[in-house]
Amino acid sequence: MELVTGLAAMQARARELERNGKRIGLVPTMGYLHQGHLSLVHLLRPHCHQLWLSIFVNPAQFGPSEDLARYPRDLERDLDLCRAAGVDGVLVPRASEVYPADFATWVVPGPAADRYCGAMRPGHFRGVLSIVLRLFMWTRCRCAAFGAKDAQQLWLIRRMVKDFNLEVELMEGPTLREADGLAMSSRNVYLDVEERREALTLHQALEVGKAAVAAGLPLKEALCAMSKHLAVHPKLQLEYLHITDWESLDSLVGVGGDPAWAGSAGDMDEAGREMALLVAARVGRTRLIDNMRVVRGPLAQSPDPATSSTLQG
Amino acid sequence: MELVTGLAAMQARARELERNGKRIGLVPTMGYLHQGHLSLVHLLRPHCHQLWLSIFVNPAQFGPSEDLARYPRDLERDLDLCRAAGVDGVLVPRASEVYPADFATWVVPGPAADRYCGAMRPGHFRGVLSIVLRLFMWTRCRCAAFGAKDAQQLWLIRRMVKDFNLEVELMEGPTLREADGLAMSSRNVYLDVEERREALTLHQALEVGKAAVAAGLPLKEALCAMSKHLAVHPKLQLEYLHITDWESLDSLVGVGGDPAWAGSAGDMDEAGREMALLVAARVGRTRLIDNMRVVRGPLAQSPDPATSSTLQG
Repeated sequence: MELVTGLAAMQARARELERNGKRIGLVPTMGYLHQGHLSLVHLLRPHCHQLWLSIFVNPAQFGPSEDLARYPRDLERDLDLCRAAGVDGVLVPRASEVYPADFATWVVPGPAADRYCGAMRPGHFRGVLSIVLRLFMWTRCRCAAFGAKDAQQLWLIRRMVKDFNLEVELMEGPTLREADGLAMSSRNVYLDVEERREALTLHQALEVGKAAVAAGLPLKEALCAMSKHLAVHPKLQLEYLHITDWESLDSLVGVGGDPAWAGSAGDMDEAGREMALLVAARVGRTRLIDNMRVVRGPLAQSPDPATSSTLQG
Repeated sequence: MELVTGLAAMQARARELERNGKRIGLVPTMGYLHQGHLSLVHLLRPHCHQLWLSIFVNPAQFGPSEDLARYPRDLERDLDLCRAAGVDGVLVPRASEVYPADFATWVVPGPAADRYCGAMRPGHFRGVLSIVLRLFMWTRCRCAAFGAKDAQQLWLIRRMVKDFNLEVELMEGPTLREADGLAMSSRNVYLDVEERREALTLHQALEVGKAAVAAGLPLKEALCAMSKHLAVHPKLQLEYLHITDWESLDSLVGVGGDPAWAGSAGDMDEAGREMALLVAARVGRTRLIDNMRVVRGPLAQSPDPATSSTLQG
């Protein structure tokens, strides 16, 4: 397995691989790898000749009061996991090269980045896009895999790939979960025993919401059921909770994460429609996010007789 | 000579050329080519195997009240000029592909874009960087040439190349001028006979400033001499006029173009230092810019005896 730290070396190597007809795949990560990351390696493997993984705890996507300094790191362990997973090369760039002195040019997403996580973490997605685009360029990857857990991130990267006409095929790996349902995350290591138990609530609330949406309950009631489930846990502080259109991520109903966006897709509630449940919360000092894809079940009969008669013709 | 309009076709062709070991050079233009553009072709020719030129009147770099609609276009003539100049390929992308529906992701320069032309044309340089980066990616160019006339544009592109670690060598072509000194520009076609005469003043003012700077006059006096020269022309409306450090483009003294930046490099006035004179003005409805590289001459004796004794002591 190759290990590259210099960006000039990476670009030279990528050019060489490409000249030899190799299709390069990339799994961008912040390290401290878990099974979720490794599932992305396996997902991407059949789609490329050379599978690269990048490890870079990107300062630009952390806010000033966030966990950049304490974000977990273990490069030796990460490299062992990569070797075992059959990764061909690992890029571990130096922050001084990624952000040279007087760095000033950014890749900036549109207003869809200002809601949900973006509302809670100003500048976060600018940091994400600015590193992801450059990783794409430096590695010349033709395909790349991202986890479904970061739904809004993936949505904005898809938008960037489309806007910039990048020839990078994006692959989405399903969220891997611990046996009890907690979404895998490098940040789970922050949780103490009690927090770990409360963190489970996020996934449980999504299951509650999924059942309610499938049962055709009004979306406000589904949201209410989820938020009630979250409210009984004293150490859990909800940041946002939304039921959204699956494709646009436009909110159908929700709370938090810039409510100006809530309800912007409110006329899209119909049976069979794919929706997403998005949640973010703090458990103690740890910020966790999760989401679930759900399908709207047959709508429960409306109590409004006028609407009923319209439906009948 | 190849003519490519589709971005997928361009990317496929660029990949193929690269695989065959060809080093690609790019001259990005908005078309309506003049000798200035063609000089960039000749400048770049020895540095690449395949010389491409792009023609795209980029809507994103025009403000709502600017001259996008009337910007001069003549594709047939441009292609003839390219053929005659030995260009290998021309990319003429379609706006619908460059800016797909719901386009939202931008390459955004830092605050150095908010002064000079950027102060007069909000969003202009965001439009420039967003097209230039993508042209670099689509064509896979390893070198590219830009005209020195657009000094701030070139400065911001250099910053982007450095920030993004792009392996694109930037070449700067000197400003070509008409016999009487007017800087060549596609926009010169807008000028009527009287305006054409007044437009000359820009270059003349730069020559006045160059002489004053070389003679060691205080920079404020040099600025004053230039601005007096411009003021006597009734159809000419000055937008900004600055004497700047050559490398940083930080203003040493100036007027207009966001005066908040003026004087930010005020302690850099020493003999031998390279400086730039930057000017922008409207002549009738036409906006023109020009600039000149100058070298600071031995400073004239300060009238302040305290300073004099310091210099001697």
